[in-house]
Amino acid sequence: MPETRPETRHDVVGIGNAIVDVLAHADDGFLAREGLAKGTMALIDAERADTLYGRMGPGIEMSGGSAANTMAGIASLGGRAAYIGKVRDDALGGIFRHDITAAGVTFATPPATAGAATARCLILVTPDAQRTMSTYLGACVDLGPDEVDEATVAGAAVTYLEGYLFDPPKAREAFVRAARLARKNGRKVALSLSDPFCVDRHRGAFRAFVRDHVDVLFANEVEVLSLTGAVDFDGALQAIRATVPTAVLTRSAKGSVVVAGAEVHVIDAAPVARVVDTTGAGDLYASGFLHGLTAGRDLAACGRLGALAAAEVIGHFGARPETPLAEYVRRHFA
Amino acid sequence: MPETRPETRHDVVGIGNAIVDVLAHADDGFLAREGLAKGTMALIDAERADTLYGRMGPGIEMSGGSAANTMAGIASLGGRAAYIGKVRDDALGGIFRHDITAAGVTFATPPATAGAATARCLILVTPDAQRTMSTYLGACVDLGPDEVDEATVAGAAVTYLEGYLFDPPKAREAFVRAARLARKNGRKVALSLSDPFCVDRHRGAFRAFVRDHVDVLFANEVEVLSLTGAVDFDGALQAIRATVPTAVLTRSAKGSVVVAGAEVHVIDAAPVARVVDTTGAGDLYASGFLHGLTAGRDLAACGRLGALAAAEVIGHFGARPETPLAEYVRRHFA
Repeated sequence: MPETRPETRHDVVGIGNAIVDVLAHADDGFLAREGLAKGTMALIDAERADTLYGRMGPGIEMSGGSAANTMAGIASLGGRAAYIGKVRDDALGGIFRHDITAAGVTFATPPATAGAATARCLILVTPDAQRTMSTYLGACVDLGPDEVDEATVAGAAVTYLEGYLFDPPKAREAFVRAARLARKNGRKVALSLSDPFCVDRHRGAFRAFVRDHVDVLFANEVEVLSLTGAVDFDGALQAIRATVPTAVLTRSAKGSVVVAGAEVHVIDAAPVARVVDTTGAGDLYASGFLHGLTAGRDLAACGRLGALAAAEVIGHFGARPETPLAEYVRRHFA
Repeated sequence: MPETRPETRHDVVGIGNAIVDVLAHADDGFLAREGLAKGTMALIDAERADTLYGRMGPGIEMSGGSAANTMAGIASLGGRAAYIGKVRDDALGGIFRHDITAAGVTFATPPATAGAATARCLILVTPDAQRTMSTYLGACVDLGPDEVDEATVAGAAVTYLEGYLFDPPKAREAFVRAARLARKNGRKVALSLSDPFCVDRHRGAFRAFVRDHVDVLFANEVEVLSLTGAVDFDGALQAIRATVPTAVLTRSAKGSVVVAGAEVHVIDAAPVARVVDTTGAGDLYASGFLHGLTAGRDLAACGRLGALAAAEVIGHFGARPETPLAEYVRRHFA
C-alpha cells in the first residue's frame, strides 16, 4: 500500500453510524433490572431510549460511533482520515460534526434536515470497566448509497466499514457500494465486525460480504466465533485464515493475532496502569493497525501500533484518544 | 440550624445559572491567541460562542453551573437539595434536567419555550489543570423573580445563591427576592462570590448585598481581595470578619479559613493523588460545608467536609462528583 500514498487524498475513509455517546456509571443490578446483556450493543427505539435515559444516572456526552472513533484515532496518530456518516441538523449533530472535524478528520456528509434526531448510544459503565450499550439509530437510518462519494472512496488507500452498518437497511446498500467502488479503484476494503449480536443478526450476509469484498477483517474473539461457527479460538483462526487475505483478531488482555496466509503474528496487549473504561478498545486497535498498514509498516508493527492505541483509550473514560496518539506511540513503541 | 430540620423540605435550595459545560483540552498558546485570561470566567455572546467552539478541540459535554454543581454535591453527600434555574426546552436543556434530577436534586423550574438556547460554558483545561471559562448565558437571562417559588425557599434551611446571577439583570432581581423570602421565613442565606471578574463587575452591589442579606459568604482568595479592596489575605480576613456572620475563604492548596465572629478555623486542603481538573473545586467545597452546616456539625467539621468534597472533584475531569460523596466522606473523614 505505501506505493499508492502519493496519489491518495486520505489514508483511510471510514463509513459508519454517526452517534453521540451518553456515558454513565451503573452497577450490575441496574443492568439486570433493565434486561441488558453486559458488554454488548442492543438497538432501541426512540421511546425506549427516553425511558432508559430517564432511569440512568447523570451522564456525560461525547461523540462516538465505532468507525468515527477509529478515524479520530488515525488522525491523532498523524494519518489522513475521512468519515462518511449521517447526523441530523440538531444540537447533538452539531456536537458530532465539531468533534470529528476538530480531531482532524474530513467530514463532508451533509446533515439530514428532517426526520429522526441524531443517533445516541446510552453507555453504562460498570465497576469492572465493561461497557453495555443501547443505541437509538435516529438519523443514521438515512445514510444511503448516495452519501458514498466515489471521489472520496477512490482517493483513500483503505475504505473501512463498521459492521453496525448492516443494521439500517439503506446503510447496508451504502456499505456494498463503498466496497465495490474501493475495489474498482484499486483500493483495499477493511471491515470490523463490531459486535457479536450484530454478527448473529446478519451472519449469512456477513459471510458472503467477507468472502466477496474484504481485504482486512477486524474481529474480537466472540465475533469471529459467531462468524465462523467454530467452537474455539484456534478453530476460528484456521477458518478465517482460509477466507480473508488478512484477519486481525483481538482478544482483550490476551492480546491479538494477525494472520495473512502463511504469516501469523501473536501480539501481546500493551500494558495499562489502570483500565478505566474499555469503550473504544477495538475501535482504536483498528486505528493503530490501519495507520501502520497505510504507512507501509509490516504486519507485526501494525499489530503493536493497534495494541498501543487501544491501551491509551482504555486508560480513561470515553472512546476517543485524550493524549495525541502520535506522541503516545513515540513514547511507548519499543 | 439542626432544630429547623424537621420542618424543612430541603436542606439547601440553590439558585443559579443553569449551564451545560463543554470541556476541551487546550494549551497556554491557545488561550493567548484567543485573548482568554487563565482561571477566570468571561461572558460571551452567541456569535463568539460559535467562533470559539469552532476553534476548540473535541469536547465532552456535561451539566454544570456553579450552584447546580453544589446542589448535586449536597445530594451526593446524602443531603436534601433543590435547584432553581432556567434552561430552554432544547436538547442541552433536556440533558441539564436529566442530570440534576438523576443526581437526586429537586428541579421544578419550567424550561423557556421560546428565546435563547440553553446556556453553555466553554471550558478550556490547560495541562496545569486550570480551567478557563467562556460562558454564553442564553436562556439564563430569562430567570426572573417569578421563578423564585416562596414555598421552596421557605422550605429550605439555607438558600444558596451564586454570584454569577448578578450578570443577567432579571436574575439579580430573583436573587434579591430569594434572599428576602429566606430571611422572612427565618431561613439562612448563603452566597458564593463565583469569580473575581464577576465581583469587579458588580462590587458595590455585592458589598451592599453581603451587608444586608448574607449569613454565610463563600469566596476564594482573589474574590475576597476584590470585594474588600484589601492588599493581602489577612487584611481581607479582618475586613470580612466585621461584615458577615460567617465567612468561608478558600485558598486552593493552602486550604481554607472559616471565620464566624471570634471563632476562626484554619483548615488544611485534603490530599489528592493527582489534580486532574480544578473545575468545580469551589462549588463542591460549598457542598461539603453546607451539608455539614445543615446537619448540625461544628464549623471546623464543615470546613473539613468542604475540603474533602473539593478533593474528590479535582481528582477527575468535570465539576460534579464521580464517587458517591457520602461513601467518599466515610472513607476519608478522619
